Amino acid sequence: MSGLRTDLYELRMAASYLRRGMTEPATFSLFVRRLPHRRGFLVAAGLAEVLDFLESFSFDDDELGYLREVAGLDPATLAALAGLRFTGDVWAVPEGRVVFADEPLLEVTAPIAEAQLVETGVLNLITFHTTVATKAARCRLAAGDAQLIDFAFRRTHGIEAGAGVARASAIAGFTATSHVEAARRYGLTPSGTMAHSYVEAFPDERAAFRAFAVDFPTNPIFLVDTYDTPAGVRAAVDVVTELGLTGPMAVRLDSGDLAALARQARAILDEAGLRQARIVASGSLDEDVIAALVAQGAPIDGYGVGTKMGVSYDAPSLDSAYKLVAYGDRPVLKLSPGKATLPGPKQVFRDPTGADGDLVGLRDEPPPADREPLLAPVMRDGRRLENADPAGEVRAARRRFDADLAWLPAGARRLADPTPLAVAVSPALTALQERVTTQLGLGGSY
Amino acid sequence: MSGLRTDLYELRMAASYLRRGMTEPATFSLFVRRLPHRRGFLVAAGLAEVLDFLESFSFDDDELGYLREVAGLDPATLAALAGLRFTGDVWAVPEGRVVFADEPLLEVTAPIAEAQLVETGVLNLITFHTTVATKAARCRLAAGDAQLIDFAFRRTHGIEAGAGVARASAIAGFTATSHVEAARRYGLTPSGTMAHSYVEAFPDERAAFRAFAVDFPTNPIFLVDTYDTPAGVRAAVDVVTELGLTGPMAVRLDSGDLAALARQARAILDEAGLRQARIVASGSLDEDVIAALVAQGAPIDGYGVGTKMGVSYDAPSLDSAYKLVAYGDRPVLKLSPGKATLPGPKQVFRDPTGADGDLVGLRDEPPPADREPLLAPVMRDGRRLENADPAGEVRAARRRFDADLAWLPAGARRLADPTPLAVAVSPALTALQERVTTQLGLGGSY
Repeated sequence: MSGLRTDLYELRMAASYLRRGMTEPATFSLFVRRLPHRRGFLVAAGLAEVLDFLESFSFDDDELGYLREVAGLDPATLAALAGLRFTGDVWAVPEGRVVFADEPLLEVTAPIAEAQLVETGVLNLITFHTTVATKAARCRLAAGDAQLIDFAFRRTHGIEAGAGVARASAIAGFTATSHVEAARRYGLTPSGTMAHSYVEAFPDERAAFRAFAVDFPTNPIFLVDTYDTPAGVRAAVDVVTELGLTGPMAVRLDSGDLAALARQARAILDEAGLRQARIVASGSLDEDVIAALVAQGAPIDGYGVGTKMGVSYDAPSLDSAYKLVAYGDRPVLKLSPGKATLPGPKQVFRDPTGADGDLVGLRDEPPPADREPLLAPVMRDGRRLENADPAGEVRAARRRFDADLAWLPAGARRLADPTPLAVAVSPALTALQERVTTQLGLGGSY
Repeated sequence: MSGLRTDLYELRMAASYLRRGMTEPATFSLFVRRLPHRRGFLVAAGLAEVLDFLESFSFDDDELGYLREVAGLDPATLAALAGLRFTGDVWAVPEGRVVFADEPLLEVTAPIAEAQLVETGVLNLITFHTTVATKAARCRLAAGDAQLIDFAFRRTHGIEAGAGVARASAIAGFTATSHVEAARRYGLTPSGTMAHSYVEAFPDERAAFRAFAVDFPTNPIFLVDTYDTPAGVRAAVDVVTELGLTGPMAVRLDSGDLAALARQARAILDEAGLRQARIVASGSLDEDVIAALVAQGAPIDGYGVGTKMGVSYDAPSLDSAYKLVAYGDRPVLKLSPGKATLPGPKQVFRDPTGADGDLVGLRDEPPPADREPLLAPVMRDGRRLENADPAGEVRAARRRFDADLAWLPAGARRLADPTPLAVAVSPALTALQERVTTQLGLGGSY
């Protein structure tokens, strides 16, 4: 991972620290300041990508040459950057856990230049993956027992983002993805059928369905809305009957009144004795459309959810921050209006019963009785502490999310006007904040 | 570029075409069905990325092995995929041009399996880059003569998306980016100063400013809002005075009432004789906040615009489509409710005076008098027709956008409630659509 994958100011600050011999460890805390619009919780995601980023962060000669020419860095700084690797420690909330605003999701402790240089990448990856996993979780809440399939790749923010969306949505319970490379990379189930263009490339719809079913007789899915949906369903029925296919099959509805068309399709399929045939819906779906279809009792077995999930359309980012909370043995904070921070390395203590809210305290304070600490060490001296394969990481994260979804109080689960869990600050952390603020006030040198 | 960077259904359809010897050329047309929320125009972008994608699209042995195992493809199809490259032609609207809904931005003509396999990547790249360039253009409209700097990298949708945002915003007139790798890749100006953490890492603000100005005496930018903004501006003044710096410098405001603080900062700077000092604002900016600051007469010289631009927060995607419009010598269309398409390869004819709207016609119909065709051939037989360097491509696109921005009618430029240019269909295209629809109706076999 190129060390130029950072903001210029990180490089300038790192250069300044290196020149001055400021090598004491700094702790930065990553948290979300406010839950976005309509969100009652977040799903932590992106940690595995962060650890990959940290393990590979370095500068090659060409990159250092660019910095010499363009960023005005001196030879001693460039020499220091040439040997720089991330050697720090990371504590983090495991992927798939449900989290809230004002709680640290991740804390980095490293010589300050290193901790600063990786800010951009760490913030980027946690923000993106958490944003999408959270949106996908809302689709899961809406869909009940129906299957969810990631169809987002064609409209994610670039090619690489498509793989991130497949991964994040898998953590939140999507069971398949259209994205072939992501399926391979993360051990997901690839899913896909046909497009309208396939139907149009044949003389008629029936010829297209017949060709597809001959080529892919195992669980064919027929896209039935190219011309007229009920006629399309009947064509699919005729083709599977003609070919004598008796295994799983499905029809996909991609436009029109999905609830009404699903009922018509169900009736046609049942009348033909194809009770095993499933109905899949797609086309600009999001959690609200899915919830409305479920509320109408639409007989839909699976939802292909694309763009609205893949870009988290109604809240495409988070108000996340990566803030210095300690430097050397000194806890620090900032006082900027609306952006004040809490000092010191932290821990989140959760009530497993859900009756009380979360408590944010100091990392080294004794955990309150019957409280579960959420952050755990995941990297030490620049090396990750567990080496799971990418597929295993996604499976483990999904299990954690399943457990937290079962735990999540009803108020935080609501799609509209949710009530997030309360997050309080421990007495020890409050005392530290007051002490540091007072010292700043007494310092008076600015 | 891995051939697995596609949706599974593209691979299934391609396999089906290959098995049946369906190798006739197909033309697919990429267009946007509706302008999103509050958009009066779009800025075409992403074409250079698409051409890279098409030139490198292929399958290696490991990827073919995965397809054999997981997608159920037979040996003959796998052999065909092993040798597959994109060998088609592409016509496109050049990057930086202003476009509207229902106009083709790009058309691919290739053997149908190839044209289908690249759908996901082509649609992804054009949609993402056009979405972001359009949002950046709105910031440009709001900012007037002030400088715009891309600060989005930390919250784009993944690491690679950060480079895309830097590129797309540069096309729309942003003059610098915080993203070092993107600056290098695309020949942009890198920009960056210090974070709050830098200020906090020193005993006090003044010490931090002094260290930074000593290390980077050329055009230092001081972040002045960590504790108290007017005090921060005075500290910056004291430091540059003490060090005898007389060149360009700036202060950056990142929180609070930016208009009021900018006026206070301007007064402090002017009083100290630092009339050359510039004021840069940042912090959750978008086109509306910038327009409000400009309307208040805030003395702000530059805006660092991050997340809201980088994810196009209020409209993070486009309702884009990649639709089959011809197969062999047969124009085709689909009739799905709300998603009907126009048949045949197309051209967009623009009135350079802007008095009349655009006209969408057939690619081979004679251009109406005094009309400029927007689409041009950019790739033939799988090879791009011009080989510009990445930096040259961005510069050329920016020049095109500058020209189109000067041309764009006032109604389409408005930030709120804009009126897009009218887009009409030529008589020749209307006649073709009617003929194809009638033939479908007469076919009656579905």
